[in-house]
Amino acid sequence: MRPILWDSRGLRLLDQRLLPWQEKYLRLRTPQEVKKAIKDMVVRGAPAIGITGAIGLVLGAEKIKARSKRDFLAKFRRIAESLKKARPTAVNLSWAIDRLLNRAEDLNVSLEEVVEILRAEALKIWEEDIEANKAMGRFGAKLIPDNATVLTHCNAGALATGGYGTAIGVIRAAYEAGKNIKVLADETRPWLQGARLTAWELKKVGVPVEIIPDVAAGSLMAQGKVQAIVVGADRIAANGDVANKIGTYSLAVLSKENKIPFYIAAPLSTIDMATSSGQDIPIEWRDPKEVLYCAKKRIAPKGVSALNPAFDVTPSHYISAIITEKGVVQPPYTESLKILFGV
Amino acid sequence: MRPILWDSRGLRLLDQRLLPWQEKYLRLRTPQEVKKAIKDMVVRGAPAIGITGAIGLVLGAEKIKARSKRDFLAKFRRIAESLKKARPTAVNLSWAIDRLLNRAEDLNVSLEEVVEILRAEALKIWEEDIEANKAMGRFGAKLIPDNATVLTHCNAGALATGGYGTAIGVIRAAYEAGKNIKVLADETRPWLQGARLTAWELKKVGVPVEIIPDVAAGSLMAQGKVQAIVVGADRIAANGDVANKIGTYSLAVLSKENKIPFYIAAPLSTIDMATSSGQDIPIEWRDPKEVLYCAKKRIAPKGVSALNPAFDVTPSHYISAIITEKGVVQPPYTESLKILFGV
Repeated sequence: MRPILWDSRGLRLLDQRLLPWQEKYLRLRTPQEVKKAIKDMVVRGAPAIGITGAIGLVLGAEKIKARSKRDFLAKFRRIAESLKKARPTAVNLSWAIDRLLNRAEDLNVSLEEVVEILRAEALKIWEEDIEANKAMGRFGAKLIPDNATVLTHCNAGALATGGYGTAIGVIRAAYEAGKNIKVLADETRPWLQGARLTAWELKKVGVPVEIIPDVAAGSLMAQGKVQAIVVGADRIAANGDVANKIGTYSLAVLSKENKIPFYIAAPLSTIDMATSSGQDIPIEWRDPKEVLYCAKKRIAPKGVSALNPAFDVTPSHYISAIITEKGVVQPPYTESLKILFGV
Repeated sequence: MRPILWDSRGLRLLDQRLLPWQEKYLRLRTPQEVKKAIKDMVVRGAPAIGITGAIGLVLGAEKIKARSKRDFLAKFRRIAESLKKARPTAVNLSWAIDRLLNRAEDLNVSLEEVVEILRAEALKIWEEDIEANKAMGRFGAKLIPDNATVLTHCNAGALATGGYGTAIGVIRAAYEAGKNIKVLADETRPWLQGARLTAWELKKVGVPVEIIPDVAAGSLMAQGKVQAIVVGADRIAANGDVANKIGTYSLAVLSKENKIPFYIAAPLSTIDMATSSGQDIPIEWRDPKEVLYCAKKRIAPKGVSALNPAFDVTPSHYISAIITEKGVVQPPYTESLKILFGV
């Protein structure tokens, strides 16, 4: 269940468009191919696209023919800026790419060595993400009561990260700690990340899971059938507002109405202290075709179109806590996030 | 766009499982075939299954071979009780069948005449439903502001009724009154009534419509992009609690949070004064396959199942008003519904 493979044979991505029907890796050779793969959602999930973007940038760096360090950096920056544009909402992509950019700019070594150091830095981003997931799991597991049914939305699991998962990492950690946990996976139209990916992942690691249509979440909450909600994030603003997969806001409102704790699990790389509130987070709208079709068959009548916002913003006052690799952050987030970042 | 045809050629139902891909009528000859068609959702929507159930009962009455009025009534009752069991949540089915039962029991005429009178009564139920829809439209249209974007869920249109529609009837009436109305149709997984049926109907009558994934409704409300919500009902309890298509409860909570009026449009035949509150309404759970498959393709991994509650209950305190053919009913519903029924 590794969404990203990068070794002497190059970069390969598990094609998430084909799950759960086929487990097939796609080989990528250039930053352009990586950008297209992120855009087309071969790989998705904020941390995973950060890692993939960084690797894509290294693939580009390896092929730069430069006369000077300055020439190298100019070409490197151009690739970086193009990659950043693959998808706008998740901040992890530009975070990871900026980290490589800064690393390259700070170096005073030969170009060959620069590429070697960038490769190591990309691997470090990846390893740190897995470590962060495990740490989030340890912190978050304590918040999940024994015998809980936990609702999650979209896929914030191994497939969305370097491995293990953010929201699903928390659920897995609670399960691995011996708690009796059952998961309800929102199917998450239009792309069906819940039905296709989360159910597939949890089935593989043995955590009991059932799929629910997105429309059923509220009613199951009202019937007392959900004890906690844990989801990931694509970008967290400095005030604690969270951009995440469309539908997250609805779950947050419904959880508040039913007095069920609503947790976000996300690494620090998802927190964007430069964005003051959720209003300033760019929300990607994707092709209406994703809504008009299901499992490749058109479900809508001819001549009718659809709206397809890919993310929504959940105001921080709906969020019980944010689970990070440095600990569980409580409201008021404007203060607690500052402390987390030491600013 | 007539879901039910009943003439000298017999009963034919527009097969709603095949829309919007195919417009095909299914011929039904016996109450058993009608029961199966209701169960399998060839026809769906509370008023439409009431009308269809009544016609199915007449089809049965036509074929009863009885030695006496008493013998006829015993056989007639047996068919009626079997038909009532086709689907449990919508009260219109048992309401319509009970109406024919009472009619038959009160008659003091020949058996041949009984069948003739039952046929007329079933037609009357159908005609009254269309009239009720039109009246709801006149009352409800006044509640829809000009230049409004109206959100609806599932399909409460011509296809769900004798014709015209309840919730969609209100929207059509506002549109026909010259108001600039736009509709957002929740796609309504798992059966996609919104994407397949509501979009198809509104396109046919020329009302501007766009499909949204169910997960997007909340966020669009929060962005001020929805001015009113109108949905139908499958059963309304005496206290105003409403059972309707799964997902209705979530929309109601989200509308309250965003201060958007939330209207129910339903005929008196949907109001069940014998059921005191929503807790007492039986909720149908359907085959998990409806969730595990989309457009006939399995979307879930092997070995994973799903929950498939077909309806939910919206407590009356979320409901701004109930639009009926006798006028718009306001809270407190326990009192206003009593007045409506003259009890």
